[in-house]
Amino acid sequence: MNINYIKPDPWSLIEEGFDPKNVEASESLFSLGNGAMGQRANFEEHYSGPSFQGSYIAGVYYPDKTRVGWWKNGYPEYFAKVLNAPNWIGIEVIIDQAPLDLYTAEVLSFRRELNMKNGVYTRNFQVKTPGGALISICSERFLSFDCPELGAIKYSVELISGSAQVTLAPYIDAGVKNRDSNWDDPFWAVTDLQCQGSAGFIQAHTMKTEFATCTYMEAKVLVDGQEMDLQAKKVGDFRIKAEASAALKPGQRMEVIKYGGYTVDLYHPKETLIQAAKEHLEMAHAHSFEALRMAHEKAWADIWQSADIAIHGDVPAQQAIRFNIFQLNQTYSGKDARLNIGPKGFTGEKYGGSTYWDTEAYCLPFYMATKNQKVARNLLTYRFKQLNRAIENAQKLGFHSGAALYPMVTMNGEECHNEWEITFEEIHRNGAIAFAIYNYERYTQDLTYVPEMGLEVLIGIARFWAQRATLSPAKGAYVILGVTGPNEYENNVNNNWYTNYIAQWCLNYAASMVERTQNDSSEDYKRIEKKTQLNPEELAQWKAIAAAMYFPESEKLGVYLQQDGFLDKEMTPVNQLSATERPINQHWSWDRILRSPYIKQADVLQGFYFFEDQFDQKSLERHFDFYEPLTVHESSLSPCVHSILAAKLDRMDQAYEFYLRTARLDLDDYNHEVHEGCHITSMAGTWMSIVEGFGGMRVKENTLSFDPKMPEAWTGFSFKVNFRGSVLMVSVSSEGTQIKRESGPELDLWLSGQMLRV
Amino acid sequence: MNINYIKPDPWSLIEEGFDPKNVEASESLFSLGNGAMGQRANFEEHYSGPSFQGSYIAGVYYPDKTRVGWWKNGYPEYFAKVLNAPNWIGIEVIIDQAPLDLYTAEVLSFRRELNMKNGVYTRNFQVKTPGGALISICSERFLSFDCPELGAIKYSVELISGSAQVTLAPYIDAGVKNRDSNWDDPFWAVTDLQCQGSAGFIQAHTMKTEFATCTYMEAKVLVDGQEMDLQAKKVGDFRIKAEASAALKPGQRMEVIKYGGYTVDLYHPKETLIQAAKEHLEMAHAHSFEALRMAHEKAWADIWQSADIAIHGDVPAQQAIRFNIFQLNQTYSGKDARLNIGPKGFTGEKYGGSTYWDTEAYCLPFYMATKNQKVARNLLTYRFKQLNRAIENAQKLGFHSGAALYPMVTMNGEECHNEWEITFEEIHRNGAIAFAIYNYERYTQDLTYVPEMGLEVLIGIARFWAQRATLSPAKGAYVILGVTGPNEYENNVNNNWYTNYIAQWCLNYAASMVERTQNDSSEDYKRIEKKTQLNPEELAQWKAIAAAMYFPESEKLGVYLQQDGFLDKEMTPVNQLSATERPINQHWSWDRILRSPYIKQADVLQGFYFFEDQFDQKSLERHFDFYEPLTVHESSLSPCVHSILAAKLDRMDQAYEFYLRTARLDLDDYNHEVHEGCHITSMAGTWMSIVEGFGGMRVKENTLSFDPKMPEAWTGFSFKVNFRGSVLMVSVSSEGTQIKRESGPELDLWLSGQMLRV
Repeated sequence: MNINYIKPDPWSLIEEGFDPKNVEASESLFSLGNGAMGQRANFEEHYSGPSFQGSYIAGVYYPDKTRVGWWKNGYPEYFAKVLNAPNWIGIEVIIDQAPLDLYTAEVLSFRRELNMKNGVYTRNFQVKTPGGALISICSERFLSFDCPELGAIKYSVELISGSAQVTLAPYIDAGVKNRDSNWDDPFWAVTDLQCQGSAGFIQAHTMKTEFATCTYMEAKVLVDGQEMDLQAKKVGDFRIKAEASAALKPGQRMEVIKYGGYTVDLYHPKETLIQAAKEHLEMAHAHSFEALRMAHEKAWADIWQSADIAIHGDVPAQQAIRFNIFQLNQTYSGKDARLNIGPKGFTGEKYGGSTYWDTEAYCLPFYMATKNQKVARNLLTYRFKQLNRAIENAQKLGFHSGAALYPMVTMNGEECHNEWEITFEEIHRNGAIAFAIYNYERYTQDLTYVPEMGLEVLIGIARFWAQRATLSPAKGAYVILGVTGPNEYENNVNNNWYTNYIAQWCLNYAASMVERTQNDSSEDYKRIEKKTQLNPEELAQWKAIAAAMYFPESEKLGVYLQQDGFLDKEMTPVNQLSATERPINQHWSWDRILRSPYIKQADVLQGFYFFEDQFDQKSLERHFDFYEPLTVHESSLSPCVHSILAAKLDRMDQAYEFYLRTARLDLDDYNHEVHEGCHITSMAGTWMSIVEGFGGMRVKENTLSFDPKMPEAWTGFSFKVNFRGSVLMVSVSSEGTQIKRESGPELDLWLSGQMLRV
Repeated sequence: MNINYIKPDPWSLIEEGFDPKNVEASESLFSLGNGAMGQRANFEEHYSGPSFQGSYIAGVYYPDKTRVGWWKNGYPEYFAKVLNAPNWIGIEVIIDQAPLDLYTAEVLSFRRELNMKNGVYTRNFQVKTPGGALISICSERFLSFDCPELGAIKYSVELISGSAQVTLAPYIDAGVKNRDSNWDDPFWAVTDLQCQGSAGFIQAHTMKTEFATCTYMEAKVLVDGQEMDLQAKKVGDFRIKAEASAALKPGQRMEVIKYGGYTVDLYHPKETLIQAAKEHLEMAHAHSFEALRMAHEKAWADIWQSADIAIHGDVPAQQAIRFNIFQLNQTYSGKDARLNIGPKGFTGEKYGGSTYWDTEAYCLPFYMATKNQKVARNLLTYRFKQLNRAIENAQKLGFHSGAALYPMVTMNGEECHNEWEITFEEIHRNGAIAFAIYNYERYTQDLTYVPEMGLEVLIGIARFWAQRATLSPAKGAYVILGVTGPNEYENNVNNNWYTNYIAQWCLNYAASMVERTQNDSSEDYKRIEKKTQLNPEELAQWKAIAAAMYFPESEKLGVYLQQDGFLDKEMTPVNQLSATERPINQHWSWDRILRSPYIKQADVLQGFYFFEDQFDQKSLERHFDFYEPLTVHESSLSPCVHSILAAKLDRMDQAYEFYLRTARLDLDDYNHEVHEGCHITSMAGTWMSIVEGFGGMRVKENTLSFDPKMPEAWTGFSFKVNFRGSVLMVSVSSEGTQIKRESGPELDLWLSGQMLRV
């Protein structure tokens, strides 16, 4: 099952030898991103083999018209999609009149490396031409973390032996498509192409959403260090190209240094996009490729300074966790509250919408602890800014009076998913958004977010639950009918325990935050009261519903039941299923999956993870022993929660096993789908497995706490966290745990039950 | 809400005055069909206004590639669609160089009539030309019931005043499309166009399914009875046309007599289709238009002889029931066991697949009682022939050992629907197919069908239920999880009472039929035992599962519950819903519908209808009073069952009210959708409302029985049924009921509890 061609290395992904079968997977794995833009690791030169072209600009999307079999009232008309953006990395390489093409060439050697320490991607390969010339190519590329609208490429062709006429033609190209387009309509309209010396600028805007962008480049071509004349020219309606040729002798080297990227109207007035691009190019030329790279490397060094995890004695695990941290940082920098974390980041098109509940449930802890409070606050602010859309979304489903239902998938706050069982019913997502506010406050102790923004979100969410829960005449308690829980292998069930639990928690939490704001921030409260028309009777109603919430459980088994009727199922444990039937979502029809007891990802156990203080260790153990054997982990978000809970139960072998499934999910391509892109959001779960699972990090009674436990396979591990401005390095070995404060103020913390000052 | 432009008349639909807004609705209502082909009431001449063109050939379909939002394992790849077939009715009418077009013409009068007694459709209208000429047009059309591959048109143009140059050009045209095509790919490939005198022949086959057809015509044009020269010619790649012109003087009449239709390889070898068409044309010419019409009228007279229902004192009700009987006969003649009854018949494209459970649950009783035993047996044989496909379908969903799941929608036995909650979960359809075998035997006392064919079907169905029911560890009883019942406003529920009940019944019935066949038809039994590899232990298992089947119920309320958890819903009766929210399927999001208690069509009550002998009158009353107030009747199949049960409860006002909703559903266009086609299968429900509801017809202890009750609005009603070869006329009036035997052997029957010999 293991694709296994990535060489183990603590700081790099390395592929050696060329195999066209790996090209699309490597395009995903070696992806580059800098929070503002990103790209799959497509080759600069032409490639005629199977390849998945992808360049992406953060926040720039297209509302593709929805395609469904049968329409249901309330479905969104559009599905916002990550857009394949114009290509600025392209370099035509023509050797003796034929394009260089790794798919057809005689490749003598091939190596690529993504250095995660400094964020630089390099390729080195040698080909023999039909004319017998031996040519060595080296390419080096990065997307600047220092100047997010700029990228740089150095691409050199060296003749080792024989002779060759070489043409190098850097270009930009706006004639791009999405692979997952529903109707094949064009997503981009090109409005202007301009050339100036070797620079080219293509202005284009997205259809419908009207995001304006300028894709730009400027290049130098040098032969043995001598710069050649280079003039950019329009080629057709979508492309600008600059071209230089030379007859190389053995030992001679021809090189392109190309700068490019996008300027976007998210950050510049529309009419100044070309000017902004020119300024980036001037800055780049003023600094040189090497200076830009140094600034970029410095930015990465700063990131690792507060985010690195070191694992001793296990190189594949070390490589994997750094890959996860690296990709999370490439995807989201936290600087812009309009952006969020797409499940595929900048590595593919799938799951077209950008934001899922993954952000609140899995990603927030990572960014909160490895970056800083402002980044985490931006993630919360994103939802605050979309509150009106969440209220509209709830209205479409028949809710009223300011009730808010956040969408399952969104780019701009509008729902853009349309399976009824998900869109309309997987409403627990609303709970995760409230929980994130609580989690943020708990970690940062920033008490200003709730009165400034969060309370409105909490009121909208509480109103939703108050309307969505209904009084069962039969049970005399509040029930929540017709939902899909985190376990999407159940649809339209009644009283999903997790949903009921988080709904109850939201109602109580919202009520308490209303009361606190009323007491502590009366100005804010008055503003919010007026804006939301909050009525004191609502609070009483929220509390009453919460107090009378129904929870399915089995007294006999001592467990809460995932939903009503769960015990009517045939309870064959997963380990008794034949391997030929796994994963069940590829082998079973949907009804069979629904009737089965099998759990796609943590559901009741997700509640035990979020609200661990509410349940004792015995209860956790009973629930873990009941649900884990029924869990198929066919979501990338599943193993991490199980790893953390297993560690809590001191089942370190199991915890480690789950950890491995999440950490190398993409590198080992467990699900045979890495060619479509990487599982970015679940990478945050991997981080949680180490920091919360093995490190046992919690905030308890407003104090940071660790309870480290080490998997047997490791000789030691260390991780860094930023807690309220103090960056700590926690090092765990068989000798014990050391905690070092690397920067920021002193603080008291708990280590394995002992209070400690660092 | 009533479109109300159809004039009341006991034997005709009549539209007077021309309104383009009614054109598409009238195209549905005035549709013609003869079981082998059919067509919407499109005009012969050009019409530039909104119109829905449709010509259909029975049994000729196209597997359109399925379009869904998200694919699930087990979905069919294709959705078989009723095909819009080449048009043979077209006549170009050119007056003074301009095409006659009712949409743009000055229309002085317009009348159309569909005479249901003789199956002839006529139009008469007068227009004034821009040149001031006054022209009267008369068209008469029928699809022969005597020769099912032939239709005939007489179309005359008479100049009343002024002068006009008139061209009449009958044509056939294979350049047609489906309105509901998923991908706009062509459904037909034209292979040959031939002309001979005024005759034209277009050979075409459907793509993928390769049904070969010849669309043909031959025409005469006469001026004042004088035949003109007419030569058919190819026009482009898809059309053959013959054209004649004349300058008319006032009082002069120009007339086309056109014969046409389709020959199809269901009935002729592929290579003889043109020859077969020529033979039809020779026959037509040998007989004349009038003689053909007389034979056609005779066939209709025979139909009415055993199928008519007369209602006295209520012309709209009279018109409605005859319309329903008429359309059912136009749709299905019962001569070919490869054909079935599509929900829209030959009146539209929607619900592309042809066969639903409607056939067994609603249509079989009509055809069984108004035609003859052979027709009903053909309907059963249709499913027998598709048994292998039903077994394959079950295999796709993970069932084994010969378990059969009949598809929800099909043309050829393959499933062609793909909403998971329907395709995979609305499995009660399997029960209706078994029930139809029981119902057929009960009515006809034909005991040969089960050993010859039916038993294999019953075994496949019983095996399905035996695998689909699972033993609940919690209940210690067999449960059926994850189903959609007849009430499609609930999805993926556990233990739908109706489904569990019919499953239990199927298991017991199949076991008893196996035993009977073993005893009474041992040769057949041996053949079937070998073919199905039936194991005696299976019977014991079926009985055991049936005996331990779980049924949800409320002891307190004394009712069976539609499904587990039904009493957790908020039980606001339908009559307290605001009118602005009705129908709920147009106003509410799907999740809201699912959470509500509202019932789309009879569900528990469908069981009380099928299995009435198992429940006493008190129990029926309790269930009716519990479920009817929650029923929104948003399926056309709902009111009829409620009408029958209300009549049984002696609630004649309510029974009549339900009857009205079903009888004039299309004529009064309750659901604003008649333009898409008529609700053919629910028309059989209307018939049941009268015969079983008001007439109280049952077969009890192998004896026919009536218990007539008359709605107050009527002064009398009568209906005819064919019971085991005896055609009876049952006449009900305020004086009492008379039963007359019109043909066939004497028989004993029950009338309102009295045994009677007729």
